[in-house]
Amino acid sequence: MKTKIRAPFFETSVKNYIYGDAVLDYARAADAASKEHDVDVLFVAPYTELRRVRENTDRLIVLAPYMDALQPGRGIADVLPEALKAAGAQGVVLNHSERPMTLNAIRKTIDRANELDLLTFICADSIVEAQALALFHPDILNPEPTELIGSGNVSDMGYVREVIRAVKSIDRSILVEQAAGITTSQQVYDFIMEGSEAVGSASGILTSANPHSLLNEMIRSVSRAREDLAKRNE
Amino acid sequence: MKTKIRAPFFETSVKNYIYGDAVLDYARAADAASKEHDVDVLFVAPYTELRRVRENTDRLIVLAPYMDALQPGRGIADVLPEALKAAGAQGVVLNHSERPMTLNAIRKTIDRANELDLLTFICADSIVEAQALALFHPDILNPEPTELIGSGNVSDMGYVREVIRAVKSIDRSILVEQAAGITTSQQVYDFIMEGSEAVGSASGILTSANPHSLLNEMIRSVSRAREDLAKRNE
Amino acid sequence: MKTKIRAPFFETSVKNYIYGDAVLDYARAADAASKEHDVDVLFVAPYTELRRVRENTDRLIVLAPYMDALQPGRGIADVLPEALKAAGAQGVVLNHSERPMTLNAIRKTIDRANELDLLTFICADSIVEAQALALFHPDILNPEPTELIGSGNVSDMGYVREVIRAVKSIDRSILVEQAAGITTSQQVYDFIMEGSEAVGSASGILTSANPHSLLNEMIRSVSRAREDLAKRNE
Amino acid sequence: MKTKIRAPFFETSVKNYIYGDAVLDYARAADAASKEHDVDVLFVAPYTELRRVRENTDRLIVLAPYMDALQPGRGIADVLPEALKAAGAQGVVLNHSERPMTLNAIRKTIDRANELDLLTFICADSIVEAQALALFHPDILNPEPTELIGSGNVSDMGYVREVIRAVKSIDRSILVEQAAGITTSQQVYDFIMEGSEAVGSASGILTSANPHSLLNEMIRSVSRAREDLAKRNE
Repeated sequence: MKTKIRAPFFETSVKNYIYGDAVLDYARAADAASKEHDVDVLFVAPYTELRRVRENTDRLIVLAPYMDALQPGRGIADVLPEALKAAGAQGVVLNHSERPMTLNAIRKTIDRANELDLLTFICADSIVEAQALALFHPDILNPEPTELIGSGNVSDMGYVREVIRAVKSIDRSILVEQAAGITTSQQVYDFIMEGSEAVGSASGILTSANPHSLLNEMIRSVSRAREDLAKRNE
Repeated sequence: MKTKIRAPFFETSVKNYIYGDAVLDYARAADAASKEHDVDVLFVAPYTELRRVRENTDRLIVLAPYMDALQPGRGIADVLPEALKAAGAQGVVLNHSERPMTLNAIRKTIDRANELDLLTFICADSIVEAQALALFHPDILNPEPTELIGSGNVSDMGYVREVIRAVKSIDRSILVEQAAGITTSQQVYDFIMEGSEAVGSASGILTSANPHSLLNEMIRSVSRAREDLAKRNE
Repeated sequence: MKTKIRAPFFETSVKNYIYGDAVLDYARAADAASKEHDVDVLFVAPYTELRRVRENTDRLIVLAPYMDALQPGRGIADVLPEALKAAGAQGVVLNHSERPMTLNAIRKTIDRANELDLLTFICADSIVEAQALALFHPDILNPEPTELIGSGNVSDMGYVREVIRAVKSIDRSILVEQAAGITTSQQVYDFIMEGSEAVGSASGILTSANPHSLLNEMIRSVSRAREDLAKRNE
Repeated sequence: MKTKIRAPFFETSVKNYIYGDAVLDYARAADAASKEHDVDVLFVAPYTELRRVRENTDRLIVLAPYMDALQPGRGIADVLPEALKAAGAQGVVLNHSERPMTLNAIRKTIDRANELDLLTFICADSIVEAQALALFHPDILNPEPTELIGSGNVSDMGYVREVIRAVKSIDRSILVEQAAGITTSQQVYDFIMEGSEAVGSASGILTSANPHSLLNEMIRSVSRAREDLAKRNE
């Protein structure tokens, strides 16, 4: 059975900004914040750190940054789905803009993930690509709003609403995340208030002056927005 | 400083034939045989298992199956050299026939490995490619004799001698391994006796009836050949 | 303005089975059959033959087998959309199973084709991929039924109906072609009768005993099916 | 038999800066200058323009910008060597920095070119890569001096001499070209005087105010340098 995610949630990745022990430190900070604010946190760790992060944290939901669709056998440098699962990964990121995949590979790799009960976190570069990928029924869709670059806040929120509507019109159960250029906890709060089920940040945190502190604030913002939404809906 | 390798040595990889705990079991068997026969063993482990293999073995020399040349930063699904090093890798395989690289990427990635004191284990598809790559001065060259496919034993040995001569004429310090289709410990013995400084086997072992036992025999054959070579040279 | 296509139509490609003058001969045979049977024929020619095929035929609709999304400038070995247009191409094949593209590249390249009034002929590996690509509103969709391989005729026809329905439910104006393993003119006839707006064949024709004759028969079958459909609808 | 090249020669490419009729105009200008100054000119044309350039020029040596190693058959978007030959190409550029190739593909594609008597024009990113590729015995080597970027003129000439020596030490018959950032006819003259057997320019010409005029001047400079070298050697 796939790991259950409670929305709204937070997602972060170290990409390759840090490595080794710094990844574990960052994961522990994320885990502590996840528990402190009672917010689910998806944590994308490099292949080499997956097992260590999973074994040394309690509540993080650990994702691999990519995998191949291959079956056990040859493929010395390929990333085997079973190997990720065995290392403790609970899900996998696919089609990140830094590792775009062919449409066919996306579909086949989602199938492999589903076989192994790995959560599928799929990135898209536009609303229409998000809709196209929604037809494959991933667990989470993260549409990077390339249309949005250079635009102001108001259109941002229009984008958020439009992409959520576009994806949900195809499959209501897909969780929709916003993760484009998030650098402040206020943005995290605002996106959740606008209806986003998740917010993600990687570079925004890791290139900040105090990553662990900003990470905690952002996760707290998810909690705060959740409470304010609950009040609004009372 | 790079890890020192004593020739003749043995090299094995799990590719993606096995995963998770089975990799650790296989690594422990390799480590035990390495100690039992006093033979250096290079062990290529999947990214996810590098740290665990390194931490749970004493004598294995642990290699990653591939890496990118990128610097710390973006590149969510790329394999960062510093991450491999931090996970315990002592070297890296480059240009494996299952993950061919551009000439330029091979050169740049060797440079990155050297910066981090990672051993470079480079594969080549022919004698002339081995010679070309010898100009980049890797630590180990593994020329897969595609010319040899379908040929008999006699030409095999001619190939072994020719490829060693070709590589050594460019850089005497490069260690030359034979690893094409090795399935028996007798082949391991014969190749070392012929002048090969290393023999490798992955599929041949992992698709055999009793991998751990065959692995041990092959490593013992390296030891036996070393002794017989020493006697011959007395 | 894009070239208008009248359905039902026929599509063929030489892939790389033939080259040079043989491509022109084949194109002339297709052109003659197109005129003889009053059937539109899409002809996919290698880059090197696009201009010659276009200049030496009257009625063929000439397609390039692929293009990149780049703008004029660098990219010495890339296929520039403007260069195809200038050579006489009226459209382009994208995402063929022999040249799969990333989702993002497909979207951007469709945009480039639309800018230049080039017809977009998009391949998909399954019904769900066809649906996903339908969201990008290409002119023609060619879903290769990999689900179908090894199956009999009855399920084939079920597939045809299902894929047409799936694509049309998203965009009625997209023309849907069948081109999987077509080797006889009877299959061409049957697929058109079943509601397919186009049938394609490349390997099936070019590896046959008499390609020009089989090509003519297949194109005639499109005409015959068109007439029989007209009668049925009277 | 391969087309014979007389050194010193000039090489130019349109990359994708221009397309359609502008390519033919540029080719005609190159052809006229080739005849006027009695200098061999290698002209790299896009796939779509190869036949037209070859048929409409007298003296140009026409090269394709890339090819695959495949044999006739499938591979709809691949560039078949036989198709280039049939279109009039006399040679092919391989491993351009805008289309880097795996080491293995370079070797196999050189073999295919030799089978078809196509000249091989191979690019390298550094002196050591040029040396490595010299082992494959291409007809022409074009080492792009990435080491040189940002350096002054004196070290440039040191680079020219060093790369020529490095390549010739492996195979004296390989022609060595300089083509990095050439923007003036004086540079063309100086490189030939320094011992370079060829100079190339693409962007430098095509982004200049008057490309046809600069092209003519550069080709004239090859002739002038040839004469001055002859005098010097009297």
